[in-house]
Order: sequence, then C-alpha cells, then structure tokens
Amino acid sequence: MLDQQTFLRDAMRRLNLTRENFSDRIGIRKRALDTWLLPETSGEYRVMPDIVTKFVTEILGGSMVAQGLTQSVYIADPNTPLRSRIGYHGKPQLLSVEQFSRDSLEELFRIADIMQPIARRQKVSRILEGAVLANLFFEASTRTRISFGAAFCRLGGSVCDTTGFTFSSMTKGESIYDTSRVISGYVDALVVRHPEQGAVDEFARATNIPVINGGDGPGEHPSQAILDLYTIQREFSRLGKLIDGAHIVMAGDLKYGRTVHSLIKLLALYRNLRFTLIAPPTLEMPAHILERIARAGHVVEQSTSLAQGLKGADIVYATRIQKERFGEEAIEGYTPDFQINQAMINASCSADTIVMHPLPRDGRPGANDLSTDLNHDPRLAIFRQTDNGIPVRMAIFATLLGVENQVQHSMRDVSWRSPHHVGPDDAAFDGLD
Amino acid sequence: MLDQQTFLRDAMRRLNLTRENFSDRIGIRKRALDTWLLPETSGEYRVMPDIVTKFVTEILGGSMVAQGLTQSVYIADPNTPLRSRIGYHGKPQLLSVEQFSRDSLEELFRIADIMQPIARRQKVSRILEGAVLANLFFEASTRTRISFGAAFCRLGGSVCDTTGFTFSSMTKGESIYDTSRVISGYVDALVVRHPEQGAVDEFARATNIPVINGGDGPGEHPSQAILDLYTIQREFSRLGKLIDGAHIVMAGDLKYGRTVHSLIKLLALYRNLRFTLIAPPTLEMPAHILERIARAGHVVEQSTSLAQGLKGADIVYATRIQKERFGEEAIEGYTPDFQINQAMINASCSADTIVMHPLPRDGRPGANDLSTDLNHDPRLAIFRQTDNGIPVRMAIFATLLGVENQVQHSMRDVSWRSPHHVGPDDAAFDGLD
Amino acid sequence: MLDQQTFLRDAMRRLNLTRENFSDRIGIRKRALDTWLLPETSGEYRVMPDIVTKFVTEILGGSMVAQGLTQSVYIADPNTPLRSRIGYHGKPQLLSVEQFSRDSLEELFRIADIMQPIARRQKVSRILEGAVLANLFFEASTRTRISFGAAFCRLGGSVCDTTGFTFSSMTKGESIYDTSRVISGYVDALVVRHPEQGAVDEFARATNIPVINGGDGPGEHPSQAILDLYTIQREFSRLGKLIDGAHIVMAGDLKYGRTVHSLIKLLALYRNLRFTLIAPPTLEMPAHILERIARAGHVVEQSTSLAQGLKGADIVYATRIQKERFGEEAIEGYTPDFQINQAMINASCSADTIVMHPLPRDGRPGANDLSTDLNHDPRLAIFRQTDNGIPVRMAIFATLLGVENQVQHSMRDVSWRSPHHVGPDDAAFDGLD
Repeated sequence: MLDQQTFLRDAMRRLNLTRENFSDRIGIRKRALDTWLLPETSGEYRVMPDIVTKFVTEILGGSMVAQGLTQSVYIADPNTPLRSRIGYHGKPQLLSVEQFSRDSLEELFRIADIMQPIARRQKVSRILEGAVLANLFFEASTRTRISFGAAFCRLGGSVCDTTGFTFSSMTKGESIYDTSRVISGYVDALVVRHPEQGAVDEFARATNIPVINGGDGPGEHPSQAILDLYTIQREFSRLGKLIDGAHIVMAGDLKYGRTVHSLIKLLALYRNLRFTLIAPPTLEMPAHILERIARAGHVVEQSTSLAQGLKGADIVYATRIQKERFGEEAIEGYTPDFQINQAMINASCSADTIVMHPLPRDGRPGANDLSTDLNHDPRLAIFRQTDNGIPVRMAIFATLLGVENQVQHSMRDVSWRSPHHVGPDDAAFDGLD
Repeated sequence: MLDQQTFLRDAMRRLNLTRENFSDRIGIRKRALDTWLLPETSGEYRVMPDIVTKFVTEILGGSMVAQGLTQSVYIADPNTPLRSRIGYHGKPQLLSVEQFSRDSLEELFRIADIMQPIARRQKVSRILEGAVLANLFFEASTRTRISFGAAFCRLGGSVCDTTGFTFSSMTKGESIYDTSRVISGYVDALVVRHPEQGAVDEFARATNIPVINGGDGPGEHPSQAILDLYTIQREFSRLGKLIDGAHIVMAGDLKYGRTVHSLIKLLALYRNLRFTLIAPPTLEMPAHILERIARAGHVVEQSTSLAQGLKGADIVYATRIQKERFGEEAIEGYTPDFQINQAMINASCSADTIVMHPLPRDGRPGANDLSTDLNHDPRLAIFRQTDNGIPVRMAIFATLLGVENQVQHSMRDVSWRSPHHVGPDDAAFDGLD
Repeated sequence: MLDQQTFLRDAMRRLNLTRENFSDRIGIRKRALDTWLLPETSGEYRVMPDIVTKFVTEILGGSMVAQGLTQSVYIADPNTPLRSRIGYHGKPQLLSVEQFSRDSLEELFRIADIMQPIARRQKVSRILEGAVLANLFFEASTRTRISFGAAFCRLGGSVCDTTGFTFSSMTKGESIYDTSRVISGYVDALVVRHPEQGAVDEFARATNIPVINGGDGPGEHPSQAILDLYTIQREFSRLGKLIDGAHIVMAGDLKYGRTVHSLIKLLALYRNLRFTLIAPPTLEMPAHILERIARAGHVVEQSTSLAQGLKGADIVYATRIQKERFGEEAIEGYTPDFQINQAMINASCSADTIVMHPLPRDGRPGANDLSTDLNHDPRLAIFRQTDNGIPVRMAIFATLLGVENQVQHSMRDVSWRSPHHVGPDDAAFDGLD
C-alpha cells in the first residue's frame, strides 16, 4: 500500500497537473490538498477521505486509456521490473542517462519518494542486510563516495571502499576485466569512478552484477543528472509548476561541464522547454547538444550576459569553471559580472526562481562562482539538491538489486533523535513534501 | 532497571564515598560489598539483598536534600536530557571539555559504565542500526579513527571514513561551510579531526547534526580528556580512592601537550587536588592553566626532577615530547633522567600508584619516553586507558543521539568467543568492575 | 543437522573416494548421486532416501574404526574445537600454513562448504552481528583487503579499514606491541598485511584476539594457499578426481613466489603427488622446499620447458614473474615460450586439466603471463579460485571466533536479486556443487 503522499504525488505526475490544477480537477480546495501532502508527523497533516482515493484512481484509469501510449504517461507493466526496462545490454547496470525514458525516469523518482522517510531519518530499513557494495574510486571524490556509501548503508547493506590507484594489482599490469571480475565475486554491487572515459564501461562488461557509473572523466555521471532533475521536479511540485514548458537557465562552463550535458539530455525528455545558455565565449555548449535540444522540439537561446539571460528563469543552474583546467591563463569573459549573487537574483528573478549548482562551488575571493551571500535565500536549492542524492541513490540501488517493492514494508521508526533541519540556514519548507 | 553494580557505583559516586566508607555507612562488611560489585559471570558474584537497595535509596534521597545544590551532588532532572545540558550553542555537539560540569561529566561516566558489557564483548546492542557516522580525518590518526568507528559500530551503526585532504572538493576552493552542510545531509553524526584550531568549530556551526571534535591541532581533543578522567575514576574506584584530594603528577611536554591541558580543566571540577607538574625548562605548563588550577582551589607544585616529583603520587600522567616539533635541536633538560621506568616507579611510588600516558609512546632507543619495561607492571594503566576509549565514545554517541536510556534494554549476548584478557600482559583485575 | 550435500561431500572426503567409487561403494548409480549433490534450488535436485543416510553413516563408523589413527581419516573430537587444534601458541590466530594437518584442513574445507550458500548470495547470516574487524594493510592489496572485509560483512560483522603507513603513531616511534594491543582493545579480530616478514607475528604476540596473517612480505599468506587448495579439491570433486596421486604443474617464478611455497606445504599433506616445476633458470624452486616434498614421499621433476612439462597435468598453477623486482634487466629464459595460452593448453593438456593462477596476472603486451585468450575456456579456474576466497575466509573467521557451528542455523534467504553467474564468461558449471 502506497501512503497518501506518494499516491497523490504520483497521481499529479501521471496526470501532468500542478497542485492547483489537480485540486480543481477533483473539486477540492488547494488548502485541503496541501494538508494531505504534509508528512504524517506534521501538526497540520490531515487524512484524505477514502472517497478521494477512489475518485483519483478512477481518473487515473480513464486518463491512461484516453492518452493511450503517449510518452508522458506512466504505465507500469507489472511483468517488467524497472531494472529490466532501464537495463544496460540486458544487465541491471547504470552507465548513462541514455538508458532512461521519461516514464522510467519518473518511476525511479516515485521510488526515490518512497525512500524519503529513510533519507530524512524518520524510518530505518534493513532490506539489503547482508549485501556488500564495493565503492571503487580510482579518482578521489569524497562527497560522491560518501553519498553512495551512506545510501547503501541506509538500505541495510555494508560498504567496502577504495580510493585512488592504490589498486596495486592494476599497477602490476592487471586488466580492468580481471579486476572487475575478481571484485564482483566478492560483492553484490559496484560503484566505479574513474578518470578515463569508457573505463566504467569496461568494468560493466566484465561482470553481471549491478555496476553504477560514479563518473568517468569527461564521460557521464548519471546519478548526478538524475538527482538534479529529481530536485527540479520536487521544487516545482512545491511551487505548483510543471517541468513541461519551464524556462531553464544554465550558466558557467557549458563546454566541459559533464553535469549540464547529462542534465540536458534528461530534460529533453520533457516538452516545450526553453533553455537559456550563458557561457564565456570559449566555454559554450557543444553543437551536438544544441542540436539534440532542438531536435526534441525545445527552444534554445545563447547569451554571454547573465543579467539579461536570468530574466524569467524558473531554474538557474550554475556551474563551476574548472580553473585547474586552465592553469594561470585568464578565461576570456569570465569576469566578476559572471557571478550569480544576491543582488543579481533580486534584480532579475522572481520569488519562485530556483538556484541550483552541482557543487563544489569555489568560495575563494575572485572565484566568480555562485556567491555565498545567497546562503540564507530560500531560492538557493543547492543543499536540497545534495540532500536528494541519498533518496535518488537509494532508489538506484533498490531498483538494480530488485528490492524496490519491498522497501516500504521493511521500514520501522528510527531509535535516535535527529534535528528537524540539517542546516541552520535551511528554509522552513526544507524536508517538506 | 539499573543492574546492581551500576546502582552501587552510582550511589558511591553521589555520596562521594570510597568502598570502605560506603560499607561502613550502610553497616556491612567491605568483602560483601565487593562480591556485589563483581560481574554476574564471576564465580564470586553475590546478589545484593533487597533491603540494601531500599536503604541506599533512602540515604541517597536524604543526601540530596541535605546537600542541596552543591556542585558535587548529582541531581538528574528527568526533563532535561544530558545532550541538552552539555549542548554546544544549543546543539548536541561536543567541541570542548568546557561544556561539562562535574555533574554532567559523572552522568556521562554512568552511561559509559552501562556500555562496558558491550565494550568487553559480553553483550551486543543494535540501537543505532540504520544510523551512519562520517569519520572525517583531515589529519591521519588511525587509532582515534578506529576507536570512534568501532564505538559507533558497537552501537549498531555504520561508518563512512575519509582520511587526509583527499577531499578533492576542498582543494577546489570549497568552504568548510559547504562541505559540512553537504556531508550532514548524508549522515547522522560527524567526527572531525583537523590540523587547524577552530576548523572543527566551523564544521559544527554549519550543521545541526551531532559533531564531535576528534582533535583540532593545538585546540582540543575532548574525548581523550574524558576517557583519561574516566580511567582515573575507575582505577580509584577499584583501589577505594576518591578523586577529591588526590595527588596528580604530570610529566613531559606540558607546554604543547593538548591532552594535559584538557585533562587539567576536567580535574579542576573536583576538590582539593594537588598537582605536581614536571617538565623540561622550555616545556613548562602555560601560565593561564596554572592560574585556572589555583583559582579552583587546588595546589600546584612545579619541578624539573622526576625522582622528587613522583613521591606520593596517586596518578603519574606521562606525555610524549613531540620531537618532530623540534627537528634536530636538542631539548634542554630532556635527558635520560626524564624517563619513567620500572626502577624509578619502584623507588618513588607506592603499590597503588597508577601510571598513565595518552599514547603513542616513543619506544625507540634514546627516546626517553615512558619505558616498556613497565609492561608487566599492573600499575601501568595505559591499555586500560585506551580500552576505555570504546565505552566513553559509545557514551558520547549515545548521549548526542539521544539513545542513552535505550541501550541497556537493547542488549543481547554475543554469539562469538572472546579471550578473557585482550593483552597477554593484562593484569588480573583488567576487565573487573 | 548437516544438509544432504554437505553430508555426502564430507563422507566422500573421509572415505577418500571419488563420486564414481562412492556410488559403487553404496550400490547406487552415479547419476542418482549427482542429483543428490545439486543445490536444492536446482530443478534436477532430488532428496536422498533416509536409508542411504543410515548406510553411509554406518560405513563411516566402520571406516573410522578400521583405519584407526591414520592421518588421512577425519575424526572430529567434539571436545576440541578446530580453533584449538590449529591454534598458534595456544591462541585462535592464523599465521602460517604450518598450523594445519590434513584433518584440520579438511575440516576447515567442510566449514567453507557450509558458507557457500552465503558466498553465492542465496543466504544471509548475521551471526557476527556486533563484532568488528580491523583490516590493517600496511601495504596496499585492495583485492585481499576487500575479500577479507566482504567475508566478515557476510557473517554480519563490521569492518574498520586502514591502508598504508598512515599509521601516524608508528611513524612517531610506536612499537608494534603498543599498536597491536591498542587496536585489539577496540575490535574483535585483526587481519594484518605488512611488507616485512615477521611483523604480523609481532602483532599476534601482543594480543589474545584472533589475528590473521594477510601476507607478510616474503613470509606467508596462508589464506591464499588454503583457498588454492580448496579450489583444487572442489574442481577435483566435480571431475571425480582425488588429490592423492594427482599431477601438479607449477610454472613461473618459483623462487620468490610466496604462494607456491605455501601451497606446496599444504599439498605435501596429501599422498603420492607428482610435481612438475617449470621456471626460468634463475627463478627455480628453493632447495629446502624441494627437500620437503621429497621427504613427504612425493615425486618432483624440474623443467625449463612448458610444452614438455604440461603433459598429463591435472593442475597447471601459473604464477606471475614480479618484473618490478628486476627493474630493466631482462630475465634469462623468460621468453614468449613461457606464456601459457590457449594453443599450448590445447596441445598439451586434456579436457579436465585445471588452470590456476594466484592473480593478478600481467595482461600487458609482452608480459608472457597467463594469456587472456583462455578466458572463455572452462578449464581456466582463476575466477572460481578468487570466488572461493570468500567462503574460505568466512570459514577462517567463523572458526577463529568460534561460531562455525552456529552459521548454518543462522541463515535466511537473501532479499535481493543476484545474477546466476557473476561473470559473463563463467562456465556453465560455475557455482554448482
């Protein structure tokens, strides 16, 4: 049995309706809907009448018949688990965002929603008790490593870590094939991060166990793009907006930024988006990505001026310029004007614009990266974004290991006390569904 | 329900009585008291008659009324959990020994006593099952890292480790604020060790989750000072001594030694101590610490001669001279005469003197550190001291996460076999309560 | 209660009979026996009639009386657990293959067989829940570290890892004695790998808790030799062969190769073996090992030609030449002729020859190490060999911690889905018993 929140959120997604449209559609006040969407622990939470459940279920049935097979409608085939539908060469492995359709992506989001009470330390699950993850980081990335590791632990599993090329066997000439096959005999899933594009793919080919690409150099980092889109979807849900038709601004290094390329590929699965791409002249979005957006029927504008480009944005997605890539060389056009800060957001954006960043951001003087003066502004969603890494990665593990339908029944209350808000600057609605 | 040992130990502490005085007070023979204080598994263990429980409870009630609000009497307010009373800026975080009063310190010790059956591998608890600790060691300290990690695991939790500045994001200019807030979204508690004073404080300010200072350079390392004092209290309890009025000798580098500074601050919460401080001329105790001891009404003597200073010591606390700090330079007055060894202890100390050291000790020839020739001497408490790191750190975690009252009921017997003594040279009374 | 497979496999071992001889002995068809030996989940699995159990039990009783005290008969004294019989200076520690007799080795194999359903992700056990392992790797060896760590996790325990000489305390002059005793107070077992021979022994002497030698430089690496022999025994069991009388070929660096020395010591516990040792002239087997084989009544031949030496081999055990040991210098006689590859195996070996290697193998061009062109050949057992590291190391932990008799009753089904074969090239019989 789905809980009330998950049922309603899922229904709104399938019907492609905002909260306002949805409450109109079923003839209730939006205020009532909001109380049904609150966590059960909230003082203002209300139980939804049974009649609403029945009504919504009926609408959903009709909608699915009426809309037939259009891509945006979610029809779960009970005979094909998600792991098979997103499989990589027939295996339960996640290497690329290309493995997703809009449907399978939204199904993964629904699983991530189920994980939220665990990610927020209200519930504990031990469904993966006995399973072991190898977190193989041939390139240091502490936050990503801990995020994957903590997600696996929160499902009850155990983690073996390795960082750097301390993999002595590989320095002795061992092939990736051998390394992958050997480690696969020890554990139940692999997360691999590697500085070379294609290396994770080699790991995946040598084994049948779940492999997740944790970033392969200039290649992909699919879980980052998925958590970014999950964040957009959750923020929009809170604000009563839809992804279809949204205005997305991306700013910074759009040439080398792996995360924006992958995020765009996922966003392109939606309809009628408007992209504004703002980059210094030498760091513009590659042509093949621009073509892809255009082919999918979206509108693209390019700009070198932040102040102009931000106007009307629903999402501002800022990225760090990887200065270590350029050495001492100055980057043409990357001036203080390129910094997104409080003044600029106040001048160009509305109260419901959302500011995101894949992090880390460079906080040093003169870095021109996303300013820390926005830390108290609730429009800054960067920590809601990293927080979402846990439920999204839990959903990925649960899906690839085939336990996604068992998680909800495996939950029990936590025994320890957690703060209501993780960060002292977290906005009042953080953690709210 | 407290067990018999914990009840009695707690009563003696509250009444500030040794075993002898306590057995006098309630009119029984000390021998009988000793059998009640043994572990239940001991052949000589005896169950205490109910009448004793009632009598002691009544004495405790009277004592608390009579002594009113004096600092040394323990009055637990059931409405204020320990985590709130020792809180750091209102958060359940442990940054400094300054957060403790004598009462709250002794309450923590009582919780550590409850942890002893787990620390000694007689019992298992899973109370923190589902919780995740991030062990962030920006400076290598393997023993401290493993001690915190093992303590968290023994409560049922999982641990994500990181060592060194492999924190690639920080080398890319990320602020401590961002790092702390991001990791806090992944886990339930942070232990942070950092080479710079104040860095752990920055971590703590950026999050509401429990943060424990695992050592911040020349700053503090509070769990070390707490386990040191816990060791003194346990050794004295075994010997029938009280901390009030004790003679504490500290020898070695008293200028830079972070551990002695913190330990002195905790000892200063007790009454009428006598300190003998023995250091080479350039490594003497800083004036502000001396003033603090004096202000609290304790007596201080300074000496440069070990042979003289050790006389009449209840505790000899030796510290390592951090030679790496001085390079090739010789340290004035740090001669072989400065080495505490078997001959010196035999000549100057009594049978119930206790020798401690925060470890590591330098065992290389010519190091002049605490000699290994004491390894078989039961007065050497250095490994009882490190062993106590586990129950003390478990008590800190349990307190900050608010599960300290649930631990005892969560215990079950271990399934595996453990040696009776961990070390082949452990004294016969090791592990005895 | 042993399950049917374990009972039968054990009986065949005690009676020193192949499947064919065993089915003859009890008057059934080999085909029937094979169905009883299948996993319960197999479609062709059949339950063995009770009468067979009774008959086999009777044969075993008679056999044990008749054969009296000969070394090859397994007589478990219920009063002496295995940990005591293989103990190291009376402690439950595993430092050397010399601690084993043939009986105790085969008893360990029986325990490893019990672990197989867990190692193959069919079952989960939590018998070591609450126990903590310290995995101390003073020398990097990622695969060995993960293998030990995963084995401990699969029994329900938790692991604290450390890699390299980040052990800051030891760089400050701390002795191994102190390090070992301190860490032993935190955890329940130690795995130690160290570049210097004898260092692990020093660790073991300083503590009473279980210590396992994970490799001490040119010294020993006993768990590797045990898993190698366990692999030989399992492969032979599948093929209906016995170790007694087998022809073992070892090729490569036989002078410095720690693994072949230890494996030979274990093989020498069996009867009437024939060894063919093939090495370049400067890398021949040391004389003291040759003498040991001869003393135990086995036949040894030495050769410098692979093509000749491989003829009639039951086992071909190849080892890597540690080129890093020789620098730029060419190794006399280590030419492409020295490479074991598909063509050579086809030319010189039969269909039931087994090819093993301790890994890593050097896959770089010109390395002359075991060729990757054998990857699809079912005779290549190198990954079955590494897979066996998990049940063998689980058996070692369970034995040293005294839970080997509780594991079977602690098992429950896994909740997640695993691939039928770990590797895409795994032979059809992989994972079969």
